[in-house]
Amino acid sequence: MGDTANASDVRRVEDALGTLEVPGSALYGAQTARAIRNFPISGISIGDFPHLIRALAQVKKATALASADLGQMRPEKAEVIARVCDELIAGHHLQHFPVDVLQGGAGTSTNMNINEVIANRGLELMGHAPGQYQHLHPNDDINRAQSTNDVYPTALRVALMTAVPELVAALDGLAQAFEGRGAALVGVMKLGRTELQDAVPMSLGDEMRAYGSTLREDILRLRAAISLLAEVNLGGTAIGTRVTATPEFQARAVEELARITGLPLRASGDLIEASWDVGVFVHLSGNLKRLATKLSKIANDLRLLSSGPRGGFGEIALPPMQPGSSIMPGKVNPVIAEMVNQVAFQVIGMDVSITFAAEGGQLQLNAFEPMIGYGLLHAISLLRNASEVFRDRCVSGIEARPERCAQNLMASTANFAALVPVIGYDRASALAKEMVSNGESWETFAARHGLPPVA
Amino acid sequence: MGDTANASDVRRVEDALGTLEVPGSALYGAQTARAIRNFPISGISIGDFPHLIRALAQVKKATALASADLGQMRPEKAEVIARVCDELIAGHHLQHFPVDVLQGGAGTSTNMNINEVIANRGLELMGHAPGQYQHLHPNDDINRAQSTNDVYPTALRVALMTAVPELVAALDGLAQAFEGRGAALVGVMKLGRTELQDAVPMSLGDEMRAYGSTLREDILRLRAAISLLAEVNLGGTAIGTRVTATPEFQARAVEELARITGLPLRASGDLIEASWDVGVFVHLSGNLKRLATKLSKIANDLRLLSSGPRGGFGEIALPPMQPGSSIMPGKVNPVIAEMVNQVAFQVIGMDVSITFAAEGGQLQLNAFEPMIGYGLLHAISLLRNASEVFRDRCVSGIEARPERCAQNLMASTANFAALVPVIGYDRASALAKEMVSNGESWETFAARHGLPPVA
Amino acid sequence: MGDTANASDVRRVEDALGTLEVPGSALYGAQTARAIRNFPISGISIGDFPHLIRALAQVKKATALASADLGQMRPEKAEVIARVCDELIAGHHLQHFPVDVLQGGAGTSTNMNINEVIANRGLELMGHAPGQYQHLHPNDDINRAQSTNDVYPTALRVALMTAVPELVAALDGLAQAFEGRGAALVGVMKLGRTELQDAVPMSLGDEMRAYGSTLREDILRLRAAISLLAEVNLGGTAIGTRVTATPEFQARAVEELARITGLPLRASGDLIEASWDVGVFVHLSGNLKRLATKLSKIANDLRLLSSGPRGGFGEIALPPMQPGSSIMPGKVNPVIAEMVNQVAFQVIGMDVSITFAAEGGQLQLNAFEPMIGYGLLHAISLLRNASEVFRDRCVSGIEARPERCAQNLMASTANFAALVPVIGYDRASALAKEMVSNGESWETFAARHGLPPVA
Amino acid sequence: MGDTANASDVRRVEDALGTLEVPGSALYGAQTARAIRNFPISGISIGDFPHLIRALAQVKKATALASADLGQMRPEKAEVIARVCDELIAGHHLQHFPVDVLQGGAGTSTNMNINEVIANRGLELMGHAPGQYQHLHPNDDINRAQSTNDVYPTALRVALMTAVPELVAALDGLAQAFEGRGAALVGVMKLGRTELQDAVPMSLGDEMRAYGSTLREDILRLRAAISLLAEVNLGGTAIGTRVTATPEFQARAVEELARITGLPLRASGDLIEASWDVGVFVHLSGNLKRLATKLSKIANDLRLLSSGPRGGFGEIALPPMQPGSSIMPGKVNPVIAEMVNQVAFQVIGMDVSITFAAEGGQLQLNAFEPMIGYGLLHAISLLRNASEVFRDRCVSGIEARPERCAQNLMASTANFAALVPVIGYDRASALAKEMVSNGESWETFAARHGLPPVA
Repeated sequence: MGDTANASDVRRVEDALGTLEVPGSALYGAQTARAIRNFPISGISIGDFPHLIRALAQVKKATALASADLGQMRPEKAEVIARVCDELIAGHHLQHFPVDVLQGGAGTSTNMNINEVIANRGLELMGHAPGQYQHLHPNDDINRAQSTNDVYPTALRVALMTAVPELVAALDGLAQAFEGRGAALVGVMKLGRTELQDAVPMSLGDEMRAYGSTLREDILRLRAAISLLAEVNLGGTAIGTRVTATPEFQARAVEELARITGLPLRASGDLIEASWDVGVFVHLSGNLKRLATKLSKIANDLRLLSSGPRGGFGEIALPPMQPGSSIMPGKVNPVIAEMVNQVAFQVIGMDVSITFAAEGGQLQLNAFEPMIGYGLLHAISLLRNASEVFRDRCVSGIEARPERCAQNLMASTANFAALVPVIGYDRASALAKEMVSNGESWETFAARHGLPPVA
Repeated sequence: MGDTANASDVRRVEDALGTLEVPGSALYGAQTARAIRNFPISGISIGDFPHLIRALAQVKKATALASADLGQMRPEKAEVIARVCDELIAGHHLQHFPVDVLQGGAGTSTNMNINEVIANRGLELMGHAPGQYQHLHPNDDINRAQSTNDVYPTALRVALMTAVPELVAALDGLAQAFEGRGAALVGVMKLGRTELQDAVPMSLGDEMRAYGSTLREDILRLRAAISLLAEVNLGGTAIGTRVTATPEFQARAVEELARITGLPLRASGDLIEASWDVGVFVHLSGNLKRLATKLSKIANDLRLLSSGPRGGFGEIALPPMQPGSSIMPGKVNPVIAEMVNQVAFQVIGMDVSITFAAEGGQLQLNAFEPMIGYGLLHAISLLRNASEVFRDRCVSGIEARPERCAQNLMASTANFAALVPVIGYDRASALAKEMVSNGESWETFAARHGLPPVA
Repeated sequence: MGDTANASDVRRVEDALGTLEVPGSALYGAQTARAIRNFPISGISIGDFPHLIRALAQVKKATALASADLGQMRPEKAEVIARVCDELIAGHHLQHFPVDVLQGGAGTSTNMNINEVIANRGLELMGHAPGQYQHLHPNDDINRAQSTNDVYPTALRVALMTAVPELVAALDGLAQAFEGRGAALVGVMKLGRTELQDAVPMSLGDEMRAYGSTLREDILRLRAAISLLAEVNLGGTAIGTRVTATPEFQARAVEELARITGLPLRASGDLIEASWDVGVFVHLSGNLKRLATKLSKIANDLRLLSSGPRGGFGEIALPPMQPGSSIMPGKVNPVIAEMVNQVAFQVIGMDVSITFAAEGGQLQLNAFEPMIGYGLLHAISLLRNASEVFRDRCVSGIEARPERCAQNLMASTANFAALVPVIGYDRASALAKEMVSNGESWETFAARHGLPPVA
Repeated sequence: MGDTANASDVRRVEDALGTLEVPGSALYGAQTARAIRNFPISGISIGDFPHLIRALAQVKKATALASADLGQMRPEKAEVIARVCDELIAGHHLQHFPVDVLQGGAGTSTNMNINEVIANRGLELMGHAPGQYQHLHPNDDINRAQSTNDVYPTALRVALMTAVPELVAALDGLAQAFEGRGAALVGVMKLGRTELQDAVPMSLGDEMRAYGSTLREDILRLRAAISLLAEVNLGGTAIGTRVTATPEFQARAVEELARITGLPLRASGDLIEASWDVGVFVHLSGNLKRLATKLSKIANDLRLLSSGPRGGFGEIALPPMQPGSSIMPGKVNPVIAEMVNQVAFQVIGMDVSITFAAEGGQLQLNAFEPMIGYGLLHAISLLRNASEVFRDRCVSGIEARPERCAQNLMASTANFAALVPVIGYDRASALAKEMVSNGESWETFAARHGLPPVA
């Protein structure tokens, strides 16, 4: 971009390091153009994460209004800024955020990208040409009384506070699906297994409902994590000493941001610590990782319970979603569950990436917040998409194969445990061994030995 | 063990799979002996974790008392069991728990180890020979109405609820040390840095206090994690269907355990789920991992701030703890901080191990709880020890090197940011560039240009 | 897609599970359409990885030619297939590969995507309408004598064998850049540091050259890894028993593929093992992870050596790439190095994801190869891009700040170690202590004490 | 230790930082005593790793002989040192190495521990009292021309070069066991499965043999890794500039060490790089991690194939090693395989720890080599123990359950794939679907439809 554009559709932009070109239609300016050249890395841009852009716009609107309110910015300027921010909040202009998510600079390129977009779009609304920053300046106006180091983490927290609830909604839907299958299948008795060995009887409905129960716990954990995100360091500026800002500005800006977002935001208690600390992101990532282990375990179980269908456990059938094999006729694979596993593996790996980024923070800042932000937003998106597809294309269509359930149960020694309190562990063991070596079914064996019925 | 003992100091023990020998003095029996042979793996035994053994004994006492209370066990038997458990709770007999922490069987060997120890020690108290299980049986009596699958996770939760507070106490001491240094050093002004580049002025005291603040947040997270551990599946037995137990037993056993431990334990809401779910352990591990990133970041910072002492940042001095080099005279290294880093790396790696173990659970049980339990108890122990040593041998002795602090600050352009609201970003940038290229100090430069004083 | 298209620009396609719609211009068919619906997960499609699509086309060409050669496919059919494959190998039609990288089914959707594209494009070339599979069938013809389970891993290996060399080339460039700076800066003497403490003198040129040396070792490791990729299981079909294929076909197909790709491919020795084993991918990922630790360490060092510039080590200057701060005038940050760190963290996390996927393989197949393939290709791409940018925008512009180098060296006790063989460790230690407490420089102190000169 | 010893059995020792006490019988001195106090962290001491202590002694012997050879040390001194080293190489005095594995200082405490032990034991042999260092000095003599920074990594490499072959031998035994079972069971036909779904027929012997094949590949990788360890930086001293040593000394010392160890050691090409680079350790860890994924996958498969025995796959029986349950009579669990899984999880987590430690190296040294050394030696030990137990107590006793194998195979549609080349994919699919919906066995169905026999 920029470099190869021909004269007719480019414009020249300038910053402290020199002059360069951007596409004529671009709302961004020189610093964004530099970032594009500096970071041609992942091909994934910040504009791919609407939650983040919206949150940044909310921060910019809040700070402009706070400045105006305190008499530190002319009301007309603040109004223009707010108007552009409203456009961004509504989801417009995402294509003007081309900066790579894997950028150096602790988010400065992201912050300058939005500063430039707001300035140039504001200039457009004011009837000026782009780059006429004497009328509306990316740094002096849009970034007034701010630093990347308070803007970026604040916006990331706001973005996550809106993204996580979408994941929670998807998980709620998935939990409901399991609970629904649980209620429907509660009458199907089957073999419970521990360590993959035949254990004791249970209901298929209870097995399914338990998956819902476990997701409900993760929903609680995610909600608790959201509440921790609400503490923001906006107003701390560069390192938490509030250089260029005032306590009044901090209070007003946080208040405005809370109002604009509708979120219960509050100011950090120790601004120095809040400037570098990324513990809340590690915490959230840990919760996403935990959720990933749950989803993967559930996917593993569903694949196991539906294995076969003839030469495996075969106790449930998953809805067929696509022909299973390019070579084996009639084969239908648990593809949705396998996708869930892979999403979980990605999220777990991302947790390690985030752990590295967190540990790597130095002194008054963590320079790796862009990767942390990308990692969390990407992981949340993967988990949300996977949860929705899991519900719609797998879980809600789970069917019991009751004959196989009964057959596996009756062939096993699962009923002996219930006899231990009656006949003792040693005698029960001897009988179980006998039944297995005879190859008898429980019904035959129990009848022959006059064993009491079990629930 | 066992195998090589000579006839005079061994006794023969027996289980369903045959006969084998144990040392004459051993309180354990055949199943423990088998586990010793089966798992000569890590050289670390469950007896190395007193929190776990104590918690297991508390569970065994609670279940015996519950059984007696419900008329399902003779009071004298329960009394003997309780007496032995009290010995174990007091820390005795740890040497009789030789089973490796990396055992298969989902904790069955651990559970049978304590069942056998209680039975044989109880027999001793009753005047019987070891192995006379007709009087007190490891399975039928000590394990009455229980399964490894409810005993082990319940005991692990109780163990963690006593181990984590010890870590919290150590962290509190460490946070206090930082807060103390913060208060003492608040008057030392120095250079704040972002991305390792000179940024804006700050107080050394604030820098130190922030480390205390961040640890206070982790203390809150750990306390929240403890409260999640309080939900136990005791009474669910094998898979949560309560086979061999009754709802009354479950209620009484949990109540007794809460009384004995003094912990606010409560019964799991979904026993099926609670039998296999290890989410709470992943959650706790995630919190330990988060703490590890904090400690490692702090250790990194202290090493950086004390780097040099001549050719580095040199703004603080850590107390010298040992000669630093076998070859370089006078060198003193930040060895305590480096130890803290390495502990953090171990804890972070263990979190991945625990994640694997959690993801690997199948159907009605997670067979890898022994590794999870070991991983958590080991990580907590490392973090606690490291925190105590960090406080005593490093943090509490941190001293400022105020001349160097002042020198670094005055040589830098840190004061320009405060001028941005006064003279604008572009002019401030030009001046900063000029000062750097002249090699001037702030004081000289500011005087020469008549720049306003900054706070 | 498909679902919402209006009648005029869609066509109806069909598979064993029913009928659905695809865009009229789409070369793919029903199974791809199903995969699109089943996996709306990451937004990243297989078509984003040209190495993979090209390798798949090479496999399809090789198998068609082998079949024709053995008289099992009509030559005209093979010729059409080969022609389409040549188009794909040339990089055409990438937009027709929309299947998500995080797909279930062990790559079946990927394999069917290319089977369908080749069939439909072939039909086009033959003058038939798309979907007239009686003339050229995705399964019976394009997939003839193949299974996803041999096609996918074979293609992935071929893709990696072409992608890794591109990374190696980038690393070679980066190593050269370090070697170049090493040669240029060899005369600048400076302080060597261990544990961030002043240690002994060294040359800045040697310090820079060592980064080149270490990358050369990683180049060797990557080349060794490439050679391990050359073993392919093509011809093993579903599980390595060669069902639907013959030994002759296997030999011919591998031979053709080696010829087409120009790679020294060879057949796996144990086809059963080769069908499920993903060790070579774990190995490659481990090497990428190792490289990531190197790059991150180097980036950390460069950031440290360039820290300040006034209040840090300040021994080198990195080329300024963008204004460093939205608030601090004159600040220039090491943004390229920070990007390198973040890429490293992503690669390290991906290694954990790949480890999970590898461990999760079951029985005759690893169903998670799509995630493994994505993970490796993405990691390689990140590392390659980062290495190129690192070279061009950072390393090749590294400059020494020789005065600061000299100043740090002379202020330190670095010269004492060389005296140990002459005056003994204990006396050298005492002198070093004295020099530090006096605050003297080496030159003054050495002159005053008549210490011998050091190299 | 030391602190609490009473006067009669302690002796006073001294270093640059002051005086302290050690047990009267201790061969170590002041710096070891300090390390004991500084690092009461993991409870695991370097003396628990005999490979490391032996290798350190070999290094100390080699350097003493090289010094004497070059006329830089009196021959009698070198002889005493060599004699003590021989005692250490023979495995004596391990109890005198109490320093914690998680120590700061880049291994200085480990190096000083052996320097002190050799000095004091040498003094004993020379008829002097411990601590009479004027006759034999830990630094000036034992550590002559060395630094921790070349001694420690060199010794670690030597230690690994002897530890890894022991793991390889265990793996070879395990591979043989699988190959043996493979040969024995080759006649048992069974169902092959992909994605846990019935796929195509295969031999149980082939399935078992493939586990051996895959381990053989890991043996090759480990052997290749060993050869990379052979490059040592001995003679580079503090940072690779050879301060206090000479090129002649380096050459002689490496030569001597190669002779003493019998290993093909060679000097590092770039000593500066070799002083800080830990890539070879990351590489080895990556290989151990890869092996761990293999072992865990195999363990998973064996648990799956032996699942049931009635309500699971039930195709093989693992030898029963201990009663499986404290509550469920007759249950026998795959405890050895589960132990293998947990060992694998530990090794995988340790790889992440090692990755962190490697990434954390700074400038001329990696201060975290003690953790890296511990991590590798511990992981190797776990893998070796697990492999031996896996072979002896599980794999070598695997038995087929041929009836179940046949039953699973015949009930499935596994034979249809072989018909695809004959009757086409679409017709084969239709027939397979019919057979499943009828609930027929292959034999009945094939007979009824006149389908051709399959191999």
